[in-house]
Amino acid sequence: MAKKHDETPLRGLLRLPVGESVDLSAHDARATPGRPGGKSAGRAATARLGKDLAGLQERLWAAATAGDRRRMLLVLQGMDTSGKGGAVKHVIGLFNPAGCRIHAFKAPTPEERRHDFLWRVEKALPQPGEIGIFDRSHYEDVLIAKVRSLAPRDEIESRYDRINAFEEALADDGVTLVKCFLHISYDEQRRRLLRRLDRPDKRWKFDPRDIEERALWPVYRQAYETALTRCATPAAPWYLVPADHKWYRNWAVAGLLLEHLRELDPRYPEADLDVAECRARLLKEP
Amino acid sequence: MAKKHDETPLRGLLRLPVGESVDLSAHDARATPGRPGGKSAGRAATARLGKDLAGLQERLWAAATAGDRRRMLLVLQGMDTSGKGGAVKHVIGLFNPAGCRIHAFKAPTPEERRHDFLWRVEKALPQPGEIGIFDRSHYEDVLIAKVRSLAPRDEIESRYDRINAFEEALADDGVTLVKCFLHISYDEQRRRLLRRLDRPDKRWKFDPRDIEERALWPVYRQAYETALTRCATPAAPWYLVPADHKWYRNWAVAGLLLEHLRELDPRYPEADLDVAECRARLLKEP
Repeated sequence: MAKKHDETPLRGLLRLPVGESVDLSAHDARATPGRPGGKSAGRAATARLGKDLAGLQERLWAAATAGDRRRMLLVLQGMDTSGKGGAVKHVIGLFNPAGCRIHAFKAPTPEERRHDFLWRVEKALPQPGEIGIFDRSHYEDVLIAKVRSLAPRDEIESRYDRINAFEEALADDGVTLVKCFLHISYDEQRRRLLRRLDRPDKRWKFDPRDIEERALWPVYRQAYETALTRCATPAAPWYLVPADHKWYRNWAVAGLLLEHLRELDPRYPEADLDVAECRARLLKEP
Repeated sequence: MAKKHDETPLRGLLRLPVGESVDLSAHDARATPGRPGGKSAGRAATARLGKDLAGLQERLWAAATAGDRRRMLLVLQGMDTSGKGGAVKHVIGLFNPAGCRIHAFKAPTPEERRHDFLWRVEKALPQPGEIGIFDRSHYEDVLIAKVRSLAPRDEIESRYDRINAFEEALADDGVTLVKCFLHISYDEQRRRLLRRLDRPDKRWKFDPRDIEERALWPVYRQAYETALTRCATPAAPWYLVPADHKWYRNWAVAGLLLEHLRELDPRYPEADLDVAECRARLLKEP
């Protein structure tokens, strides 16, 4: 098992150092750390991870039936068009869907707004044995909430520490957090928005408000830098996934999940039953 | 589009006639109606359906963003080991997991028992644009509930009509119900239970109570026959899927979903935006 870890030592390559200021302009969105070849080799490499991912997921699920509380939570954040939905489709699509709990966080509903910002997050958490996936997350409450002043400054300021405490409590309760910031460049976002406009089968994804959000790119970048700096903790580090190349993004997210699952090393539970007696009962019936 | 329907005219082959008594002993669980060749050809045929399934799912989802309320609900029922979980893994695994809402119904919780039997079902329904999947369902309330006398006789008797009214209301609200009874033979169940006992990676799925349930096979069969007879309606027919061959079961369930999705023929919505103006705004920025 230990040897296999080394095949994709992505965590070391992509983890943002805890306690250091993040400067996103220092990270190339087109980079391919640990690169599995180019586009077609990368796609094939991702597909090859599928079997191991699904196998480890089954063991995690099986272990939960015997009381193991461990589970995984993939948090996907990134600018519009950075590929959060694409990662769900292509990476989470490799798992057994029955064991995945996917939640896409939208603008809070009136009911959600009446509660603390973590209320709706608690309700969407994976159960023991599950792979949880957040497409956006509680981080929106220090990102768009900050950029658009959706909450008082003091309130937002207090959230970083509360997020850290929340995530540490989750980790203590058996949740392995894999927080991925999908890092795309300003130019790549323009290309993707133009593609959405040009292709009739993509146009429904286009929202003219995306152009207004894009105008705030530097403010969002700053909000991301603060969140990535203040909420990278030993219990729940952030991974920066260069995401201008979709094939690389998928491979990297899949690889990160695989490394974490391998480290968890979930085991099929020992069955608490008399196998010989059960066999005999089944064989003697009409 | 019409031509493509005819490639897998499974609905006609597998649909139980409305208003006729169902006799399960008349149906061969090893049959392969509309058979796509044998095991390996069948598996390949299922895999080939994946692209069309995912493509139609995306359109269904896209249409929902523009107000289309349509969605699909796959109901999977069948004796223990009939392959409900396998169908989710292999068939639903072909879809984008973000658009699937999967619910496995277990024994009702104390809270669920305090409500009407349809209460927990309502909460698990797919939203517009989604593919909902029930691994077991409200039918358990006329199956195990009847076999194990978990509710008064009158109460159970009243449920058939209430299920029909419930499903008709769903259909009127845009839900396409695809109810599949996975039909396995008594012998095949024994083989599958023995395999679970013999394989260390399957043993965790074995529950000695399965042997006791199996002893009630004739009573369950009768309860199924009643449910399939009384709840096959024009709005929500039942499909009998011979399930002794796993490869056939997967192909048939995938094919049924595909036929229904093709009939829905969801369309990408027309974008309500000025494409030229959006292009210009994106191109003139720094």
